[in-house]
Amino acid sequence: MKQNVEFKTALNLILNSVNKKLRTEFRNVKESLWYTCAVNVKSKYDIPNYDNSAMDGFAIRSTDTQNAKIDNPIKLKIVGEIKAGKVSRLKISSGECVSVMTGSCLPQGADAVIEKEAVEYEDNKIKIFSKVKPNKNIRFCGEDVKKNEVVVEKGTLITPSALGMIISCGYDKIKVYRKPKIGIIATGDELVDVGEKVTYGKVRNVNSYTLSGLVEKYHFKAYNYGIAKDEVKQLKSKLTKALAECDVILISGGVSKGEYDLVKPVLLQLEVKPIFWQVKQRPGKPVFYCIYYRNGQKIPIFGVPGNVVSNYIVFEMLIKPLLYKLEGRNEQEQYFDAIIEEPVEKKLGLRYFLRGVVVQKNGKFYVRTTGPQGSGILMSLLRANCLIVLDERQKNVKKGDTVKIKFI
Amino acid sequence: MKQNVEFKTALNLILNSVNKKLRTEFRNVKESLWYTCAVNVKSKYDIPNYDNSAMDGFAIRSTDTQNAKIDNPIKLKIVGEIKAGKVSRLKISSGECVSVMTGSCLPQGADAVIEKEAVEYEDNKIKIFSKVKPNKNIRFCGEDVKKNEVVVEKGTLITPSALGMIISCGYDKIKVYRKPKIGIIATGDELVDVGEKVTYGKVRNVNSYTLSGLVEKYHFKAYNYGIAKDEVKQLKSKLTKALAECDVILISGGVSKGEYDLVKPVLLQLEVKPIFWQVKQRPGKPVFYCIYYRNGQKIPIFGVPGNVVSNYIVFEMLIKPLLYKLEGRNEQEQYFDAIIEEPVEKKLGLRYFLRGVVVQKNGKFYVRTTGPQGSGILMSLLRANCLIVLDERQKNVKKGDTVKIKFI
Repeated sequence: MKQNVEFKTALNLILNSVNKKLRTEFRNVKESLWYTCAVNVKSKYDIPNYDNSAMDGFAIRSTDTQNAKIDNPIKLKIVGEIKAGKVSRLKISSGECVSVMTGSCLPQGADAVIEKEAVEYEDNKIKIFSKVKPNKNIRFCGEDVKKNEVVVEKGTLITPSALGMIISCGYDKIKVYRKPKIGIIATGDELVDVGEKVTYGKVRNVNSYTLSGLVEKYHFKAYNYGIAKDEVKQLKSKLTKALAECDVILISGGVSKGEYDLVKPVLLQLEVKPIFWQVKQRPGKPVFYCIYYRNGQKIPIFGVPGNVVSNYIVFEMLIKPLLYKLEGRNEQEQYFDAIIEEPVEKKLGLRYFLRGVVVQKNGKFYVRTTGPQGSGILMSLLRANCLIVLDERQKNVKKGDTVKIKFI
Repeated sequence: MKQNVEFKTALNLILNSVNKKLRTEFRNVKESLWYTCAVNVKSKYDIPNYDNSAMDGFAIRSTDTQNAKIDNPIKLKIVGEIKAGKVSRLKISSGECVSVMTGSCLPQGADAVIEKEAVEYEDNKIKIFSKVKPNKNIRFCGEDVKKNEVVVEKGTLITPSALGMIISCGYDKIKVYRKPKIGIIATGDELVDVGEKVTYGKVRNVNSYTLSGLVEKYHFKAYNYGIAKDEVKQLKSKLTKALAECDVILISGGVSKGEYDLVKPVLLQLEVKPIFWQVKQRPGKPVFYCIYYRNGQKIPIFGVPGNVVSNYIVFEMLIKPLLYKLEGRNEQEQYFDAIIEEPVEKKLGLRYFLRGVVVQKNGKFYVRTTGPQGSGILMSLLRANCLIVLDERQKNVKKGDTVKIKFI
């Protein structure tokens, strides 16, 4: 087991500890929102799959309008109409037009559509006052997407627009990665749960709910196993249950140097393979990471420090990337540069994750911390719209320095 | 009814057409994630609610360490231990210390905690090698939050960290706004649904799913009423059902000038109050907005143009703000400045919403469009990470101009 590793080492150890994505499943596209595509989705046909009108108006032959002028309109006879969604065998010859709607097929012979608003009516004729270019207001077959073109890549999260694309390309079912099930256990004799009275020396179990909230925010599935008191039997029983049911386990609290920290010894009794303990970061140093083997499946287990902010940061920075990998989701964290508006005292060798508020002024980002940054101070997170990331080699930060931020 | 209004007029007409938020309800905090607070949430107690240790270590009297040096450590006798969550009557005198864990109460007489890692052991004594400042590693009662302090304001969306705060402040139930129910109806003879064959002249019903996906993305509740063919009876029957069950209705398609556009006449038959038709924007011009009265409740109805991109943009820019208002959610859209890297032809008097990709270089945002911007081209949206917003008074845009963007 490695000890006291740098953040990047920790992240690599975590990502390399699992080699397989979870298995795939076919889902009805209607229930596939926020799943991750397990295939390159190719369009089953051209989109649009027929030449059609982009406007409500009249399908015409553009050459007929060659000499149309405001004071010398040309007239075209309306010889029929084509409704959207209807097949039509209509043809037009010179001097004729057909009434069409947005999405209507075009009559044979037509090469443009003039919008309804641009014409005047006279009996069953329309008057056109200016030249219409060929192809005007026509959406051509395959113009948006060609048949067999890859429209959504493997590893893409199915957002509302990706969902629309998959549906428009003709899919009823789609192959996606199964969602990892995340088991959450809180530990600590001092914890009381929602619905219980907070007496002297006790605090509310917050982590189970912020963690499950984060799990759901990023579209994974959370299973809450409640609070395990600092007692071997209870923790072991909850852990055994979670390990049988889940793909990843998050244990909040009980991994620092305190003598009543039972998590590590209990995990070792369960014959996990320890990977690392402690990360050179602030907050969130005492992370314990290990792997449990269940019938050939590797079940990653995180022991996460119990302070609420540490919990949050460790989830964002170390756990979430693993969940993405397990689900095959190709999402890159996006960092931006910002100018910091206050000095920050920093220890060399540690990575800091400060909670900040970023605003844009004159095209550039400026960031401040949200005040006291203690790892128990949830307010520091609640007021933040970003994390400020200061890497290991960074010394004290001066006002005006450029730092990396990440929106949260 | 107003016609062909500017975007801001449309938005104001929409927001002013409803005057009440939906009613409130008490929810178990465990089921309150992504609801909106209907009260200013005040902490029921100080957080922490007792002075406690921020580290695993030893509670000491800082004055004892006054002369501690690396070559002249001072020794303190361990006179007991306090577990986290346990009430303790322990006291320390000069020369004594007590073993504590993160979260443990402090013994009387202690004014600092030294972390376990910084001491050495000798029999039942610890050795300390440098001066410890008073208050070191102590979290004081009320340091994070004072009793009765407002921690989450009315109108705040309950995110994972806000949820944690509400729970830590002692709440089991929380007053939230009821979530608006959004009914979605797609219209058009050319539409076939998921599971049906796409024949010549037909296209997939995409909008029902992108719209319900967007509704869910922003944590509202979508109810899909399927496809109404272009026929009065069917549309009226679906609308009547949705109007009886939902708080807001979105009808996709059927609101342009086409002769088979039935939506407006059917709505007028249902005695809605028309508010406006057509917005000076691209895409998404032919929006129809009206109000239906159901037992004193105003039910907003949007007729949204049927092109997929128009659908998306109208949701983002006009519908979402109304849903926020109905749910009492105080969220401000955030716009940023970016330098555009290509010229854009633009008509004066219209607001444009282009799909773009923004990147940061040398601290500034640079943006490009995602290519062809036709309102039927879903790919333009799928590739985008932002919308580029060009307002009515903007003329053609030159490469290098500063434009407003909004992440999507």
